Amino acid sequence: MSELKQHIASAFDRDLEGIQAQIMKMGGLVEAAIMQSAKSLETRDEELAELVRRNDAAIDALEESLNEEAARVIALRAPTASDLRIVLSVMRMSANLERMGDLSKNIAKRTGVLVQMQAIGGTAPSLRRMAREVELMLKDALDAYIQRDEALAEDVIERDRDVDQMYNTLFREFLTFMLEDPRNITACMHLHFIAKNIERMGDHVTSIAEQVVFLTTGRKPDEPREKADRTSTDADLAPDMDKDGD
Amino acid sequence: MSELKQHIASAFDRDLEGIQAQIMKMGGLVEAAIMQSAKSLETRDEELAELVRRNDAAIDALEESLNEEAARVIALRAPTASDLRIVLSVMRMSANLERMGDLSKNIAKRTGVLVQMQAIGGTAPSLRRMAREVELMLKDALDAYIQRDEALAEDVIERDRDVDQMYNTLFREFLTFMLEDPRNITACMHLHFIAKNIERMGDHVTSIAEQVVFLTTGRKPDEPREKADRTSTDADLAPDMDKDGD
Repeated sequence: MSELKQHIASAFDRDLEGIQAQIMKMGGLVEAAIMQSAKSLETRDEELAELVRRNDAAIDALEESLNEEAARVIALRAPTASDLRIVLSVMRMSANLERMGDLSKNIAKRTGVLVQMQAIGGTAPSLRRMAREVELMLKDALDAYIQRDEALAEDVIERDRDVDQMYNTLFREFLTFMLEDPRNITACMHLHFIAKNIERMGDHVTSIAEQVVFLTTGRKPDEPREKADRTSTDADLAPDMDKDGD
Repeated sequence: MSELKQHIASAFDRDLEGIQAQIMKMGGLVEAAIMQSAKSLETRDEELAELVRRNDAAIDALEESLNEEAARVIALRAPTASDLRIVLSVMRMSANLERMGDLSKNIAKRTGVLVQMQAIGGTAPSLRRMAREVELMLKDALDAYIQRDEALAEDVIERDRDVDQMYNTLFREFLTFMLEDPRNITACMHLHFIAKNIERMGDHVTSIAEQVVFLTTGRKPDEPREKADRTSTDADLAPDMDKDGD
């Protein structure tokens, strides 16, 4: 490798390290947002919910600066095809994280409304467990990215089935509460959206893990995963329909 | 400009034209998907719904080939900062279109379930009108992109308020149907998701229009637009909460 080439390569590596540090920081903020939003719902803590809503601005700002930095690196370093693939993956991952931040913020907003209503059964602890699962998946997906650990990434993808299952169970529970007493409908609609938000966060983590598999193996994610639940043909519920378009 | 530079510039322009043609084709398919999904719901046409579900694969394939082509162009042509901005915008727009395709497919899936239930009031025609509005917005946003017409793009952004308003009205209507008769709950949940999907499609079109404003003026979209509806503080409804995280 000529001296000039080497110089360019290491400059790219330095830039990439900077971008990756930003992704990890963003990931940390999103992990906190997930857990705090679920906790604020369970403990009916309006102040904590308000904090989550305020903190989302920092996540958005990180995504913006990360995208600008990535565009700068592409323009300046004219990376090779495989380096370019890394930069584009990081941009996609930051979009996933940014959306997860929005979803946490949305949960916190709904918490602000729900604390004014009667609690519905034991649904808040179930939602917190579901959020905890997604947070752990995110932690592992980011570790898998930094370590380029394909097995760990595949494990994360697999675990999203549990999250889907938890969502399906909760969906049915909300329906029964609504049928039991129409006065529960409004609260249940909010709780259902919260469950759906967490389930969508699981999909975003899965997408991050799929990027890792792609980067380490060059293999594109398989055809859409089999749904953990088969209720699309169940005319009454069909909750897994919520999986599209997230 | 040296002859070599000129040669590179026109090669980039040719590449960009190819990418733009793909975006327009993708836009055409998404426009059709939006209208067909809404029509299949109104006319309870299961075959048309099935067609929308099948056609989504073509939209996904276009996004993939567009992203590959964009990455190839960036790597090969090492575009200037402003040309790079165009390519990155097109990639973002294709992500918006792909998601709109998914949302149409989701509407078509729910149609397959809803035809087995009793129709709920006059909600299907309302949903079709809402979908029609979003389809026209998309058409204009794509025209605005090709013509670099900032005024038209701003107009599209403005019209998203009407879509939000239509959604809010429908949300309240579904709630009253559910409160009136709990047997309506399941159908109303599906119809509500359909309304929400259309509302989210409006947000994606807005995001495309904002890209156009950014490309023509270099101006980033303003702070999050004012919500057309202020019910966040309304403990009973708060439908505009659904705006985050889409």
